[in-house]
Amino acid sequence: MTAAIIDGKAVAARTNEETAQAVAEFTDRTGTRPGLATILVGDDAASAVYVESKRRTSVRLGMADFHRHLPSTASRDDVARLLDELASDDAVSGILLQLPLPESLDTTGLVDLIPPSKDVDGLTTASAGLLARGLPGLRPCTPLGAVELLDSSEVTLSGSRVVVVGRSELVGRPLAQLLLQRDATVTTAHSRTQDLPAVTRDADVLVVAAGVPGLIGAEHVKKGAVVIDVGIHRTETGLAGDVRFDEVVGVASAITPVPGGVGPMTIAMLMRNTLTAAIMVSEPQQ
Amino acid sequence: MTAAIIDGKAVAARTNEETAQAVAEFTDRTGTRPGLATILVGDDAASAVYVESKRRTSVRLGMADFHRHLPSTASRDDVARLLDELASDDAVSGILLQLPLPESLDTTGLVDLIPPSKDVDGLTTASAGLLARGLPGLRPCTPLGAVELLDSSEVTLSGSRVVVVGRSELVGRPLAQLLLQRDATVTTAHSRTQDLPAVTRDADVLVVAAGVPGLIGAEHVKKGAVVIDVGIHRTETGLAGDVRFDEVVGVASAITPVPGGVGPMTIAMLMRNTLTAAIMVSEPQQ
Repeated sequence: MTAAIIDGKAVAARTNEETAQAVAEFTDRTGTRPGLATILVGDDAASAVYVESKRRTSVRLGMADFHRHLPSTASRDDVARLLDELASDDAVSGILLQLPLPESLDTTGLVDLIPPSKDVDGLTTASAGLLARGLPGLRPCTPLGAVELLDSSEVTLSGSRVVVVGRSELVGRPLAQLLLQRDATVTTAHSRTQDLPAVTRDADVLVVAAGVPGLIGAEHVKKGAVVIDVGIHRTETGLAGDVRFDEVVGVASAITPVPGGVGPMTIAMLMRNTLTAAIMVSEPQQ
Repeated sequence: MTAAIIDGKAVAARTNEETAQAVAEFTDRTGTRPGLATILVGDDAASAVYVESKRRTSVRLGMADFHRHLPSTASRDDVARLLDELASDDAVSGILLQLPLPESLDTTGLVDLIPPSKDVDGLTTASAGLLARGLPGLRPCTPLGAVELLDSSEVTLSGSRVVVVGRSELVGRPLAQLLLQRDATVTTAHSRTQDLPAVTRDADVLVVAAGVPGLIGAEHVKKGAVVIDVGIHRTETGLAGDVRFDEVVGVASAITPVPGGVGPMTIAMLMRNTLTAAIMVSEPQQ
């Protein structure tokens, strides 16, 4: 058996098309575009590339682009003032504070200045609380993207055994919550887990977000399982994930490649969140 | 083999003694007592008994008792005004809004008026967010009590496989988070889980908070596992839990009885949370 390849690029492109269409409808209806404010503090090259890519996509989908760049010497107050300004600007539907911030800044405190209604990255304490309680709110983009890929492949989540490897604040923990709300039986494994292969072999659906290159091999995967690889690492032979693709492709029934799997979904979900944020604000006024 | 019985009454009594001593020290040091405000809306008999028991314990441990009773006809604004008043009263360390509220009231919205620093039940969205992010905050009492019982029995959580049966907002979900932060490999099972016995038999530690009388029997438990029963139900033959105690006692290495297991721990953790809330407010001022 060779696993079906879950084409994240194609799913992301389809999702973005749907978002663009909904943005056009929103703009026709309200006379305003959904607006995404991106904030870059300092000059980290990778962060600049990510922000650029998000801005370009948002404009392509018809949104308004509000970009702010602060120097690496910006104080906490500088960032806080900017966040407050964007929070009270009705033209800004979503605020994305690109991480990591320079180390001198209080990341948690600053992120929490983003109002939950504009928290399109889903990273604030308020958004985490809404997710934990199963209340409506904006969810983190990468976990949303992983679930969307499973849905696009018509994978049954209700009643299935899902193992999430990794318990990061950005991916593993919110993803476990999303999957639980989809009625999966969810196990979270991590660096302290004993006998990881025994744990992961229970999985009908295995989602790997451990941040460890090549952690998961054929011995970790039940025959016919669906494998989603959230990891992405630069290696000597190119980009690679947390999953040894060449091995696991012979055991799984479906698998995401790296690159071209979860990666493209993250921006697509950010775009959808920005549209959702705009709609949430506009609807009570109709 | 017969399982050791985990004596929740004894652990709760010991915890309460420690809390009383810390309350006395706090009062000596600051000149004020930690204060617990309990709010009862309406005349539900069971709720009245619970509130009475919490008040009595708080007074016995040396805390100040601020009780408010609103009629069942109280409006949302009546409850909101009272919560605001207690939120801004420095003598009130913790606010407990006894649930369930009369059905006409917006429970989620009202609970969220309790500031996280006084949320001794750990039920607000803000507290749920702090727990989900692993940030300092007040945690829900019953999950805390279950973990405390495991600690009192010197059960190793780090690296162990823990299965939580139940995904309620009050118990199952926060408990899974607490256990994950203690480095357990955590599985959440629930009513949609397929082949529950196969899932629960993986558990070194099995915590049952399903709300289904007698759900878990010998066939669900690995030999030598530790079993914590959060359920409590009135049956024809007296109080009973989610676990068939008489069966499981012959398989487990340790087990909580019902009553006398997790139950007494819930109030003990409420008391400790109230003390913690008082200390958190007082310390920045020293």
